[in-house]
Amino acid sequence: MRRIAIVLVAVGTLTGLIASATGGIGQAAEPVPIFVKTIPPGYRDWKVVSVAHEAGELNDIRAVLGNDIAIKAYREGRLPFPEGSIVGRIAWTYEASKENNDTFGREQSFVAGSPTDFYLQFMVKDSKKYAATGGWGYASFGKDGTPTAGAAMTNCYPCHQAIKGRDFVFTRYAR
Amino acid sequence: MRRIAIVLVAVGTLTGLIASATGGIGQAAEPVPIFVKTIPPGYRDWKVVSVAHEAGELNDIRAVLGNDIAIKAYREGRLPFPEGSIVGRIAWTYEASKENNDTFGREQSFVAGSPTDFYLQFMVKDSKKYAATGGWGYASFGKDGTPTAGAAMTNCYPCHQAIKGRDFVFTRYAR
Repeated sequence: MRRIAIVLVAVGTLTGLIASATGGIGQAAEPVPIFVKTIPPGYRDWKVVSVAHEAGELNDIRAVLGNDIAIKAYREGRLPFPEGSIVGRIAWTYEASKENNDTFGREQSFVAGSPTDFYLQFMVKDSKKYAATGGWGYASFGKDGTPTAGAAMTNCYPCHQAIKGRDFVFTRYAR
Repeated sequence: MRRIAIVLVAVGTLTGLIASATGGIGQAAEPVPIFVKTIPPGYRDWKVVSVAHEAGELNDIRAVLGNDIAIKAYREGRLPFPEGSIVGRIAWTYEASKENNDTFGREQSFVAGSPTDFYLQFMVKDSKKYAATGGWGYASFGKDGTPTAGAAMTNCYPCHQAIKGRDFVFTRYAR
């Protein structure tokens, strides 16, 4: 009996490991979230989707860009975004421009300063590879290009589910 | 005597007309400002120089873009900008994003809305053609693509003289 019990525990432990890697016992196997750890090359040359300012703790001003596949889909209003689409955003500190204000003669001008702590972020479309997060791989990099730690990354997909109807992409194309 | 006086007045008037067209009596002939009246093709595909927010009466959020010649000069820190450089900016209304704020759980997000009354502006470098305005031809277009009326255009160059040391271009390249 004792030998049988040990074997059952071993099988149980193994099952547990498999379950944690696939999503849980008793569910259909679900893939584990995979985050993008490399900065897509050439992103600084991409075309503009739109621009935005996040106040509050972020306090940045940002450009949202797209690779050619994403821009084509945006312009055609195509949803979901096709495989290979990448939407990126660059965030700089939000700075009052003394030079501009002196020229205008009033306080009104805010410009891009230096890279922020969440300098670069990307969504990479690959429906199979990133099936666990709606077909998008999420990426975030600090001002030195280091990938943002995993704990913060787990917030990406839950938040983006708010706009599942636009294939999880918040930013609209600015015409 | 009376006939001579009339002739002198006529000559004086004619001289005045010539003077106003060339820059003034007793100066070397100066070229008349020429404003750019056509939207440079393909500008929406250009690369990002930077982004900004103008508060106050303008109340816009904007992307500053450059054609390939301008972007190359910016990245190399080359001044003055070479012939053929074009720096452009697109301005959209500055809008609070309810969708983003609802997702963030706080009021913080401002995005690009619709084209403004001064939707598109460009500076086109051609040192000979635009010699009267520092080698740059200035262009401005409303939301329907109509060139901004001449009176407003006369303010471009005087204002840009504040940054003559950077070849009259306010916006710095955001890295």
